Amino acid sequence: MIQLSLIGIGTGNPEHVTLAGVKALREADLILLPRKGEGKTQLVDLRRLLCRQILGTEGEQPKVVEFDLPTRDSDGDYLAAVENWHTAIAAIWGGLMEVHLPQGGRVGMLIWGDPSLYDSSLRIAERLSVAGSKVAVNVVPGITSLQVLTAEHRIPLNALAEPVQITTGRRLRERGWPADATSVAVMLDSGGAFETLDSDGIHIWWGAYLGMDQQCLIDGALKDIGATILKRRAELREQHGWIMDTYLLARQN
Amino acid sequence: MIQLSLIGIGTGNPEHVTLAGVKALREADLILLPRKGEGKTQLVDLRRLLCRQILGTEGEQPKVVEFDLPTRDSDGDYLAAVENWHTAIAAIWGGLMEVHLPQGGRVGMLIWGDPSLYDSSLRIAERLSVAGSKVAVNVVPGITSLQVLTAEHRIPLNALAEPVQITTGRRLRERGWPADATSVAVMLDSGGAFETLDSDGIHIWWGAYLGMDQQCLIDGALKDIGATILKRRAELREQHGWIMDTYLLARQN
Ligand SMILES: C[S@@+](CC[C@H](N)C(=O)[O-])C[C@H]1O[C@@H](n2cnc3c(N)ncnc32)[C@H](O)[C@@H]1O
Ligand SMILES: C[S@@+](CC[C@H](N)C(=O)[O-])C[C@H]1O[C@@H](n2cnc3c(N)ncnc32)[C@H](O)[C@@H]1O
Repeated sequence: MIQLSLIGIGTGNPEHVTLAGVKALREADLILLPRKGEGKTQLVDLRRLLCRQILGTEGEQPKVVEFDLPTRDSDGDYLAAVENWHTAIAAIWGGLMEVHLPQGGRVGMLIWGDPSLYDSSLRIAERLSVAGSKVAVNVVPGITSLQVLTAEHRIPLNALAEPVQITTGRRLRERGWPADATSVAVMLDSGGAFETLDSDGIHIWWGAYLGMDQQCLIDGALKDIGATILKRRAELREQHGWIMDTYLLARQN
Repeated sequence: MIQLSLIGIGTGNPEHVTLAGVKALREADLILLPRKGEGKTQLVDLRRLLCRQILGTEGEQPKVVEFDLPTRDSDGDYLAAVENWHTAIAAIWGGLMEVHLPQGGRVGMLIWGDPSLYDSSLRIAERLSVAGSKVAVNVVPGITSLQVLTAEHRIPLNALAEPVQITTGRRLRERGWPADATSVAVMLDSGGAFETLDSDGIHIWWGAYLGMDQQCLIDGALKDIGATILKRRAELREQHGWIMDTYLLARQN
């Protein structure tokens, strides 16, 4: 029997880990840490560091095993490529569990933010099969980047009694401002999807590297501050070699 | 100088508190605990218990002061009544801070779930003035009921690369399925707003008392399971004297 815990770890601030997260990590027999290519080494280092901080050095330690994430096909059908990629990752997870836990045991995976939000680990876990063992999946919630965004700007996500749409940069570009939403939170934007909107009357609260030392916050009327955000984003990306950012937009009438 | 921390505490499971939440509570000089009327005593007890568990008994202890929440006008304009109510609560907070921290200090407030999501404490804090002290507000993110819902059902919030709308029961009733959303998370539903939808092709994941001992989860095709959920909801409400529930709806094509 394999017990797989997908453990939300927040987005860089080790103090955002919950007590349940600490416990799940400490109780694991095996922790699998993915290595990502392309300049994201700082993110891998952050996970390693967090892992070490939380586990400490006392008591019996879980075995920490790193593995290289396969790369995703970038041509052809997007959804099909993602499916294949998930299957490939599941095969790697399964193989590592067979090797390192032949008698079964507890596996922990550190999930950035919360496992429910734009994350594939639950979909990968569905495809998982481990020879000779049943796999039971368990999810430990974690603080999302959106929660760090609103906490650091000291703002609510929703206007009073109003709805919020959480969407992607790609979708905002393709479809514009979602009907039936007064606030829109945007993730996975490769840069400036908000430029495609009519900026009149829209306020933006933007954050990059949320929860980390290099955290950067900007907010203001979109029409005044949109260009500034894009300029700053390009500079930060240049400086650090990578960037993760997210933002909340609200129509103010 | 008053430093006010709005501390997200999750929705009932004390292990969902973050390390930053524990720290903010322990470092407070004063903790304000609202008492709510109308059969919600169990929720107040839960906060008291959580407070005690986290603070422990060692070292210098914050002063814990309880206060009765004023009631909100229920006739007249809804938004105006809410504004007046927030002003009244801010006056109580301010008064208590003047009495208990005449020289200033750190105040902690336990916020259910996360302070950003359908919660008024940030709006109340904006109205706060404390004679002789500047007030600085600080937000500590917490696990929301929606994250416990998805974690316990072991599901993602969003379909792959698709948006999610977070909305209220009232709004779902009045406006129907939001345009431009494949998934809809519903909070603050006084019961069965989903009945107003055409249930064909919709899956529901429902959860009540999430994170607590009496947690109850149901999921299935809305057209098969909608009535069962409402029946169970009524029974649980009867049994416990109160209920809090939330659900995720997804269109499956
Ligand atoms: C694949 S999604 C994962 C989201 C994650 N599961 C969460 O709960 O936040 C990655 C996107 O999340 C956002 N994000 C994640 N971490 C962030 C951070 N530290 N600062 C700003 N945005 C972040 C960015 O929009 C990024 O494109
Ligand atoms: C005023 S809102 C506060 C939400 C809270 N700030 C959060 O982050 O979850 C209250 C609504 O949240 C949802 N909720 C809060 N706690 C819950 C729980 N333990 N189980 C189920 N739903 C809950 C219900 O929909 C309820 O009507």
